[in-house]
Amino acid sequence: MSKQIIVYGGRGALGDCLVRYFKSRNFKVTSIDLKENEQADINITLNDAENLEKQAEFITEQIQSSSNGEPVEAILNVAGGWAGGNAHDKNFIKNSDLVFKQSVNSTLITASLASKFLKEDGLLTLAGAAAALDVTPGMIGYGAAKAATIHIGKSLAASNSGMPKNSSVLTIAPITLDTPMNRKWMPKADTSTWTPLEYIAELFYKWVDDPSSRPVNGSVVKLTTKDGNTELSYH
Amino acid sequence: MSKQIIVYGGRGALGDCLVRYFKSRNFKVTSIDLKENEQADINITLNDAENLEKQAEFITEQIQSSSNGEPVEAILNVAGGWAGGNAHDKNFIKNSDLVFKQSVNSTLITASLASKFLKEDGLLTLAGAAAALDVTPGMIGYGAAKAATIHIGKSLAASNSGMPKNSSVLTIAPITLDTPMNRKWMPKADTSTWTPLEYIAELFYKWVDDPSSRPVNGSVVKLTTKDGNTELSYH
Repeated sequence: MSKQIIVYGGRGALGDCLVRYFKSRNFKVTSIDLKENEQADINITLNDAENLEKQAEFITEQIQSSSNGEPVEAILNVAGGWAGGNAHDKNFIKNSDLVFKQSVNSTLITASLASKFLKEDGLLTLAGAAAALDVTPGMIGYGAAKAATIHIGKSLAASNSGMPKNSSVLTIAPITLDTPMNRKWMPKADTSTWTPLEYIAELFYKWVDDPSSRPVNGSVVKLTTKDGNTELSYH
Repeated sequence: MSKQIIVYGGRGALGDCLVRYFKSRNFKVTSIDLKENEQADINITLNDAENLEKQAEFITEQIQSSSNGEPVEAILNVAGGWAGGNAHDKNFIKNSDLVFKQSVNSTLITASLASKFLKEDGLLTLAGAAAALDVTPGMIGYGAAKAATIHIGKSLAASNSGMPKNSSVLTIAPITLDTPMNRKWMPKADTSTWTPLEYIAELFYKWVDDPSSRPVNGSVVKLTTKDGNTELSYH
């Protein structure tokens, strides 16, 4: 029987990379996103117009039925977009609302899923951002949404958070990911400082496959890439 | 001509105390809340069913017309409620959604208002919580919403955040406020460690009246009350 994982945001660039990577390692992969990922074994397709509570209920019911009570090895949350803007930006409220919905709502849902479906010593990863480890005056909503995500990750790693016994919560904090969209929008950037998606897929696979390789529970794992080499630091 | 301030959450216990206090000092006071505060000069009454963007637009239009282009001395945000629950709590998603709406949405709106209406060297205060300075496994949504508020406060104090020149952003981080609701729900608690609302009103008044008395811009101001005496520490 295949081991199973859930990728939240499985239709994004990083999510798609994770779906393919874990499929190649013979995992049964569930993708949760606004659109289907054809590579996934199971797709849970969200209706963005539904409120958070309805979305959470829908996803929970779907996983309840598709997981057949089998343990989930890992829930990998890579959902979320970027939006800039300081407090005086004309789209400040709209963009902040959007990034909170993308980042925080998915973080809350995956925390809830982990408390219900993750196996003992399973892994939950959350999508933070290196920028949110400092102030973010030029992208206030984005930085605050990622700071909230980081806070949730650290809280989930503490006692009595509702997480399964011996499970781990790790929040990755990338600087810039090497995605097609980032290449499109920043055509002149030095991509040797961008973190390859495959690197993250391998890292997550290692953490899933060998729990002893995981950083301390609750760590924020910053990914710094230089000359194509990525190093990790813990916050 | 009276100086004017805006109290966001003017119908709550602390908000009502602020409205009365600043009225007694001859300020023109605008209260923003779901219900009117009869003591206020101007009330902006929100429809909770509206989305964040609509609420922000409505408030901005109302203040545009009621402020008559006169400078706003201070915007005091004391909105927000409390809800507990770890990730396995049956109301985890619902309660987290609620506290984010109460705390983060009001924080975003007041940040936007400050960028538009606050005078140079004016004051914006935000409603943080001492609990959010550490992990909050038993109240994950609440702690994360307050962590986001704290992040926004620090970001607004940095360069190019959109805030008016020489203005200050201070985020208060109380432990427990001495409100009628807290007395009702925690009847056996030691209230000598609860911070009196009047103390905060006097503190805010001092900061408004004398900018040189303010802590460093961007500070999180923790209020610790012992034997009825409150001390401040900065984070």
